[in-house]
Amino acid sequence: MKTALSGFDRMWADLTPVGREPSTGGYRRYAWSRTDHDLREWFMGECSARGLDVVQDRAGNQWAWWGDPDTEPGVVIGSHLDSVPDGGAFDGPLGVVSALAVIDALRAEGVTPDLPLGVVNFVDEEGARFGIACAGSRIITGALPAERALALTDADGITMAQAWRDAGRDPATMGVDEQALRRVGAFVELHVEQGKALALAPDGSEDLSDPARAVAIGTDIWPHGRWRIEIPGEANHAGTTRLEDRRDAMLGLAQVVQAARASAAEHGCVATVGKVRVEPGGVNAIPSRVTAWLDARGSDESAVRATVDGVLSAAAEHGATQEEESWTATTRFDSDLATRLSGILPDAPMLGTGAGHDAGILATYGTPTAMLFVRNPTGVSHSPVEFAAASDCHDGVRALARVVTDLCSREKAD
Amino acid sequence: MKTALSGFDRMWADLTPVGREPSTGGYRRYAWSRTDHDLREWFMGECSARGLDVVQDRAGNQWAWWGDPDTEPGVVIGSHLDSVPDGGAFDGPLGVVSALAVIDALRAEGVTPDLPLGVVNFVDEEGARFGIACAGSRIITGALPAERALALTDADGITMAQAWRDAGRDPATMGVDEQALRRVGAFVELHVEQGKALALAPDGSEDLSDPARAVAIGTDIWPHGRWRIEIPGEANHAGTTRLEDRRDAMLGLAQVVQAARASAAEHGCVATVGKVRVEPGGVNAIPSRVTAWLDARGSDESAVRATVDGVLSAAAEHGATQEEESWTATTRFDSDLATRLSGILPDAPMLGTGAGHDAGILATYGTPTAMLFVRNPTGVSHSPVEFAAASDCHDGVRALARVVTDLCSREKAD
Repeated sequence: MKTALSGFDRMWADLTPVGREPSTGGYRRYAWSRTDHDLREWFMGECSARGLDVVQDRAGNQWAWWGDPDTEPGVVIGSHLDSVPDGGAFDGPLGVVSALAVIDALRAEGVTPDLPLGVVNFVDEEGARFGIACAGSRIITGALPAERALALTDADGITMAQAWRDAGRDPATMGVDEQALRRVGAFVELHVEQGKALALAPDGSEDLSDPARAVAIGTDIWPHGRWRIEIPGEANHAGTTRLEDRRDAMLGLAQVVQAARASAAEHGCVATVGKVRVEPGGVNAIPSRVTAWLDARGSDESAVRATVDGVLSAAAEHGATQEEESWTATTRFDSDLATRLSGILPDAPMLGTGAGHDAGILATYGTPTAMLFVRNPTGVSHSPVEFAAASDCHDGVRALARVVTDLCSREKAD
Repeated sequence: MKTALSGFDRMWADLTPVGREPSTGGYRRYAWSRTDHDLREWFMGECSARGLDVVQDRAGNQWAWWGDPDTEPGVVIGSHLDSVPDGGAFDGPLGVVSALAVIDALRAEGVTPDLPLGVVNFVDEEGARFGIACAGSRIITGALPAERALALTDADGITMAQAWRDAGRDPATMGVDEQALRRVGAFVELHVEQGKALALAPDGSEDLSDPARAVAIGTDIWPHGRWRIEIPGEANHAGTTRLEDRRDAMLGLAQVVQAARASAAEHGCVATVGKVRVEPGGVNAIPSRVTAWLDARGSDESAVRATVDGVLSAAAEHGATQEEESWTATTRFDSDLATRLSGILPDAPMLGTGAGHDAGILATYGTPTAMLFVRNPTGVSHSPVEFAAASDCHDGVRALARVVTDLCSREKAD
């Protein structure tokens, strides 16, 4: 294991400079960019160094197989290498680097898995460039039709089809890939925790020393949705219009933002207004329309619905209209697999998450799927200061190795 | 006068389709665009039809002179033809069309002014494209150095220098133009009112029938300023970060917006947050920074300062920093000229305004300047629904003709 962990550290150091923006210290690793190309090359190089060929599926996800998954389905570990704008180093890469380190750990111990073992690098998990998260897994499962994916545009108006061509890919090859999915008997995605549940003792106090809380087993992905709220106003001159003659859409936004916080607190959920558009957007113009996007999640579907109802009621007082842009019910990871992981890692807490993952897309597709979460001392993610301690990352590799050893052992897997 | 007024109606109809966006009904007449070129050609055509040559100053403002202003300074009337994004038909063009109609009215009555009479079309009054209002008058007076103006960029990153070259102009010719300004003995700008003071009787009830309130005389431009407020937060995942762990800059914005309204009401001013920037701006990202621009104005400088202090105090509770981007003290129009206009139009109310105008820039430069405002029944401006009744516009032409006849008469002007 010592060799595997030093390999982990070496790979981590290799990735540290790739796609890092000097002015913020955050990562800008966007799908099908030059940086993404470098990361994909790096992944192929690491797999090649381990004697593993990389095959790409019809969305461009990279799969490296130890053993032949076309004779029988295998166990897949891995995650993604792309990032949100100015994201952190851990969200995604931790799962990929850990998976490669697990290969090293098994080999150092002389273990040859009975079942095929795969390492995956999902493409475009964050959706930072084209706006749809988990695009790689959605495309191969059919959750995102290729036709729609190819027509998505980035901030420069470049379609995904063009981005594919620019990356030397043929957009006509994009589509559902049942063959790639048939190879996956089980998928275990290790990921940095994106909250601080593991950093808190059961009594709520901060405790980063408990070794039993370095790694958790994922139980489900919370129900979550996105609503677009259109708040009307009346364009008018900011200097000459009396307060009593105004219909200022920005005042509606203020109330929506406050209602989101209050309603989430009331119902034990989280709700966020992270994106707004103001029209006409002039310093001296009273806003004629504000569009606000509401993101709401929680462990319980009815609580999330109640949270959103509270916000939409406040918005309606300003004459706002709304559209539900997306709604995803609770995604439960495979309960048999979770039970089995509990047996392998008896001390690990069970944890739901408010974030979406490729693991969730595969679980919805029907693939037996599990997740492991590595403690995040600050709970911060999607930010340059996202962090996990090296010792906790190493514990993650150890836990993933134990899981893989068990799952790939024929006597238990059969 | 009848001929002049039918000329007014004909010119108004000519301009109606120019630069109108079909989807909104609003005007998009931006400086140095193709539409602006068409408007400038139209202006030259109308002047030419009246036997008036058009000369351009070193900012591109167009001046048509009846008589020789280099022998003695003359009286100038006019306004601008550009618009804000999706602006109305009246803000600007009403003053230009009225000025041309006044030429017709004087000629129809056989009046030849003793003093030179000029009609001006100021360029880029709204600053819609390059962000600085009254650019044309600011450049010739030196309030906006040419070097800085030429480096301004539009939303597509095109500099004003490039826009000039694209319009066939030499940026090296831009600069202060004392010769053009020396010709202006007095400037009277007629403009649609951008509030509804003239639409209300002294008791506050709506009254659009009072002929004495169709046209007002401008007294001053309110003190006004612009503040940029930076509200800090912490980027984090919208789905996984507990409410108690958040520093959400959007909550700070909500409080700033509400404080702006409350503080303006308390101090009898107006305050507006019309433009915001949210970072990182993702639907699933807690805002790490919100930049809000505050516009505040009022009839009294200390009241405006108190309004802004109230907003900045609220912002400071969220750790916000602020920068005063601009501050313009009260601009008083020439009191002798205002007194004289009161004598010519004894029934006209006296009115301050919260909007900036080229007349304000010239007044600050030292040119004797006055304004006339035409009643706006809704008070709405900078919007497609901006409106003034044809009969009130005609009253505006009549009033302007009386003012010009008086001001251009040598026995009174000397």
